[in-house]
Amino acid sequence: MPDFTDKLQPSKPDGPTILAKERAQSNISAEELAQHLLSHDGFLERQARILPILEKEPLFNKKQQANLSRPDLFKLALARAKLLRRLVDRHGWNIDDYKMAETLIDDVSPYFLHMHMFVTTVREQASDAQKAHWMPLIESFKIIGAYAQTELGHGSNVQGLELEARWDQRTHEFILHSPTLTASKWWNGSLGRTANHAIVVAQLLLPRPGTETSASPQYVSHGPHPFIVQVRHMESHQPLDGIVIGDIGPKFGYSTIDNAYMLFDQFRVPHSALLSRYSQVDPETGAYSQPKMGKVVYGTMTYVRSLIVHQSRLALARAVTVAVRYTSIRRQFKDRDNAKGPEIHVLDYPTVQIRILPLLATTYALHYVGLAMQKTYKSARMEIERGDFSSLAYMHSMSSGLKSHCTNIVADGIETCRRALGGHGYGGASGFTRLGPDYLSRVTVEGDNWMITQQVASYLIKRMTDAAANIHTPAVDAIDASYKEFLTAHQNGQVIEPYDVFNSDYAIVKSFQRRASALLYDVYVERVINKKPWTSLMIQLNKVSQAQSLVIMVEVFYEALKSEKAISEAAKASLWDLYRLFSFYTMESSSYDFFNSGAVSQRQLSELPTKVKQFMTQIRPHAVNLVDAWMIPDYLLDSALGRYDGKVYEDLFNRAHHENPLNQITFNPNYWENEIVKGGGDEWSSILAKL
Amino acid sequence: MPDFTDKLQPSKPDGPTILAKERAQSNISAEELAQHLLSHDGFLERQARILPILEKEPLFNKKQQANLSRPDLFKLALARAKLLRRLVDRHGWNIDDYKMAETLIDDVSPYFLHMHMFVTTVREQASDAQKAHWMPLIESFKIIGAYAQTELGHGSNVQGLELEARWDQRTHEFILHSPTLTASKWWNGSLGRTANHAIVVAQLLLPRPGTETSASPQYVSHGPHPFIVQVRHMESHQPLDGIVIGDIGPKFGYSTIDNAYMLFDQFRVPHSALLSRYSQVDPETGAYSQPKMGKVVYGTMTYVRSLIVHQSRLALARAVTVAVRYTSIRRQFKDRDNAKGPEIHVLDYPTVQIRILPLLATTYALHYVGLAMQKTYKSARMEIERGDFSSLAYMHSMSSGLKSHCTNIVADGIETCRRALGGHGYGGASGFTRLGPDYLSRVTVEGDNWMITQQVASYLIKRMTDAAANIHTPAVDAIDASYKEFLTAHQNGQVIEPYDVFNSDYAIVKSFQRRASALLYDVYVERVINKKPWTSLMIQLNKVSQAQSLVIMVEVFYEALKSEKAISEAAKASLWDLYRLFSFYTMESSSYDFFNSGAVSQRQLSELPTKVKQFMTQIRPHAVNLVDAWMIPDYLLDSALGRYDGKVYEDLFNRAHHENPLNQITFNPNYWENEIVKGGGDEWSSILAKL
Repeated sequence: MPDFTDKLQPSKPDGPTILAKERAQSNISAEELAQHLLSHDGFLERQARILPILEKEPLFNKKQQANLSRPDLFKLALARAKLLRRLVDRHGWNIDDYKMAETLIDDVSPYFLHMHMFVTTVREQASDAQKAHWMPLIESFKIIGAYAQTELGHGSNVQGLELEARWDQRTHEFILHSPTLTASKWWNGSLGRTANHAIVVAQLLLPRPGTETSASPQYVSHGPHPFIVQVRHMESHQPLDGIVIGDIGPKFGYSTIDNAYMLFDQFRVPHSALLSRYSQVDPETGAYSQPKMGKVVYGTMTYVRSLIVHQSRLALARAVTVAVRYTSIRRQFKDRDNAKGPEIHVLDYPTVQIRILPLLATTYALHYVGLAMQKTYKSARMEIERGDFSSLAYMHSMSSGLKSHCTNIVADGIETCRRALGGHGYGGASGFTRLGPDYLSRVTVEGDNWMITQQVASYLIKRMTDAAANIHTPAVDAIDASYKEFLTAHQNGQVIEPYDVFNSDYAIVKSFQRRASALLYDVYVERVINKKPWTSLMIQLNKVSQAQSLVIMVEVFYEALKSEKAISEAAKASLWDLYRLFSFYTMESSSYDFFNSGAVSQRQLSELPTKVKQFMTQIRPHAVNLVDAWMIPDYLLDSALGRYDGKVYEDLFNRAHHENPLNQITFNPNYWENEIVKGGGDEWSSILAKL
Repeated sequence: MPDFTDKLQPSKPDGPTILAKERAQSNISAEELAQHLLSHDGFLERQARILPILEKEPLFNKKQQANLSRPDLFKLALARAKLLRRLVDRHGWNIDDYKMAETLIDDVSPYFLHMHMFVTTVREQASDAQKAHWMPLIESFKIIGAYAQTELGHGSNVQGLELEARWDQRTHEFILHSPTLTASKWWNGSLGRTANHAIVVAQLLLPRPGTETSASPQYVSHGPHPFIVQVRHMESHQPLDGIVIGDIGPKFGYSTIDNAYMLFDQFRVPHSALLSRYSQVDPETGAYSQPKMGKVVYGTMTYVRSLIVHQSRLALARAVTVAVRYTSIRRQFKDRDNAKGPEIHVLDYPTVQIRILPLLATTYALHYVGLAMQKTYKSARMEIERGDFSSLAYMHSMSSGLKSHCTNIVADGIETCRRALGGHGYGGASGFTRLGPDYLSRVTVEGDNWMITQQVASYLIKRMTDAAANIHTPAVDAIDASYKEFLTAHQNGQVIEPYDVFNSDYAIVKSFQRRASALLYDVYVERVINKKPWTSLMIQLNKVSQAQSLVIMVEVFYEALKSEKAISEAAKASLWDLYRLFSFYTMESSSYDFFNSGAVSQRQLSELPTKVKQFMTQIRPHAVNLVDAWMIPDYLLDSALGRYDGKVYEDLFNRAHHENPLNQITFNPNYWENEIVKGGGDEWSSILAKL
């Protein structure tokens, strides 16, 4: 309906004018940087190819999804999942194409677990015969699978799972049974309403040899094992007798996926249900064979953690892109020292810069560490496949530490960006209402971020113990060398000179190393020398792990820039500034540790805020181009504030005035009348019926 | 439908058993503490009286609200608002009773602005004649009002508002007009769909004297002024001609309130629309009279900020209550040094304690500072009403600083508690899905938390400047005394002894003061002596403000305990431990500042983590009773995890299995079939129609 607002324009200068100026004022080419960051693995080509296909499909339009109820959102998500799967057929997409589409649509699909954990588990843990049976059914989507491990009472502690799989020697079946309410499976994605099959992880209970055929055999638990189980009728899609399944209900985010609860009541599955690539039960004797390579399961978890590390950069880049573009455009207040001047663009306030620009630098730090993580994973994986497990412990430690550290940074960073947007950051057009709550899941999935840092610290303490025990033998690797250097200096009571971090980029790396080594040394003394209880040290263990992850991030960032030859001088100079900003900003938040460990002098530490401000000033003119380089399409941003073209206010207004369904309803505000919607009559009872 | 899950119990020991033990093991009486904290102003009596009335009303049942669409949520909210208003009539509730009910229902009501800002503004800024006309209409709800100040382009900077109110001398009317899109009112609560009247803040444009009656008078802006305006037809509830209004759409939280956009096209209002208690326009001459007490408007803002400070404690207490109860019950992993023992209650892990127990201490710190803020506000208000404005600047500074500091702590603290719950913290039954996103609004409303700290710093720099200029005259108050002490020591180059914070509770207060004074002194030198641009100092200004707010919090906490005589020794001892935990935990996060300012020795600073652990260990046995003392009813918590009775897993399962509407729907997961719901036929088009 046309009205007088149609001809109104935002006050001048408008967003497009401002962003054009921002882009022109920098000598950095966003296009060049994008190639540097994302041409790897065909990412840019793939995004450019898939995006227009999705944008053409009305079902993938995101305009109204925030106005739907959970049940309607789920119906939409399932319809989208089906369409997406059809597009795979229609365009002959490979798995990377599919994942790109999934990322751009930004729904966690009801098929998610089928496409990821279910198929991966069968591929890695099923015997050849099992694979021959199941893989064609999975790939054709004749069956839809999920992965049911976590229970109501146990998540992190997998050994504590309560669901039982008891071997019945007489019938040669396993009996799945939930002895308590807390044994209920819980959180298992794609299983609540969608899947008809699942990998079900249960305690394998086998009769103690000699008691197999007695009337009341004695059972021994062999720990959690994976079973592949049909859980719903293929026709009616109802749970099979002896199984209760459902969706656990609304959550903080992730509305479009059906996280499940599932319980079993003496439910029998055949011998072939146990995935038996590594663990086997002899169907005749009930005898158990040990997995030949117990650590392979570790490998899968490491893979998912390393993937989360790699993905973290784009989640943060999405938030930072919105924040940089919008705060470049937004103006508020005149300069207190120049009341006659124009209003200031809020990104020119140091109090806005300090929230956004270090995070902009962090997106780049995350990028290089994500690549390094992938590289380490791939080479370790190849070694493992050759039967060499020597690099597994390091890879496991690195992926656990970085998963914890990077997802913490990103979860907090997204919220920091959102708040930096002021009031409009709270609105639905910010682009944060799905990104923020969805990403928060990352800090607990695949190992709670606090819990898994113990695994890192445990590895590092072992390394420090080894270094101390063999202090006079040559170092076996860089970590060993740095620990021996630290220990030797410490033993000799050497006066340690602080590193001159303002005049050497490499000294920055060394300062992070020394700080981490000092924290590790303290906890090593407590645990190994003073025999303190592990639990009592947990806060320090977490700190050691976070400090170590920072060492890796700073070191990898430094090495990447040091060895990079292909990019222009202008881009390179800004990348070094980002490196310094990231390092100094991070250092400042732990100044006392850097001081206390002798890594940096009090003089330089007290100068850090000034240095941080200096590098923010140097990066500021390039900020828009530095976020443009991430090439995040408007379709994914779904943000009026972060649009590439800068039409912030036009889009905010359009979404409110033309796209908000609440404005189609006229209400009756008089409290003495039962009518809620004008002309709707007495709706009291229909409202009550929904409660 | 009965099934085999009906008879299942959680694994032993169950929640009720554990909480009973927790409550018995502490010698602190939750009841005694509750009286100490909340008997003030009849809070406990009021809560006990109102709660059962609300719980009886099916419309106030919260079970299904997370499953509703935004339009349905809004209909529900309006129905609830009507019912609540009827309960006021039925039970003869006063305004405090009403606000208690509003808090417990936990919907931000569509009548919110009518009941708060609208009526307050009329009461404070209307002339007696205006009040005589409007107040009866407001109090009887014959009209529903809102408050429209913020615009699409301007929030914090009120002086920059674009909406014009131009005086037409010929017709004796004001012409409201939005010259641009960014002049659109935006965010104005209760106005999007509910209100038919509003306070509209617009730039008052008056003809330059002598040009009033010319064909093209020259206009001069007198800044933003409030007008009371009818915006919708009383019968049809449609916007009046020349006005466009609507709801801005879905947001991060606050779904149940209709935040508005509103624009005017040469819309005429009578002379009487200008609220004229302080500012007047002569209807005959168009001449402007200055407000006699310009700062009174300040007073209203200060009132709202001080209220937010006071309310912050219960928002955090809600989160901490859930976190303490659930982590007492939850068990995960055995002790690494005792593999044969039982699983450990997660609140016994230091890594869980460090996230929750300092926040438990913070709820108490916030309580005392909230009371102090209310007291300062009331006494200053009385002085102002006597025409004495001398305490206004201090009160404004205190309320701005604390609003920023306390809402930051609480917004972050709620999320910290949520994450400490692990996976279940992400579920809808956590009690955080409404609390978290709703509370996030507090960091931007009533002055963005970063922006308003400038007002604090500005005041403090002035105080430091005064102290420096009059260093030899006697101190006028405690702040002046502490600044003069600092300056004298600094001038004399005295070697300053650090405070012995481990052996004196008062030394803790002094150490926070010295650290704040040192930060302030540095910025005073930069600004006043070195004449640095204000903008360039903003990060430091923010830091000064936050440090000053901490001084107030620590000082007030100390004074409250020092002077408290009425409570038992056991309770008192734990309150002192909470004071120390809050102080040391806070100090540790800024160790470098405390070191650098000479406030605390390096030896004590390096001991802080140990001290924090020690006080956490002392508080741990009392944790459940210390949260019980906040007396937050289950109805408000709305959390399976935080229930008073500890039936965590029973309630989680009940909500999923019996209350989740998604489980009433059976889906068709086959991607080649258009059917989404089993038996539903081809729903593709009905789904598309909702997009």
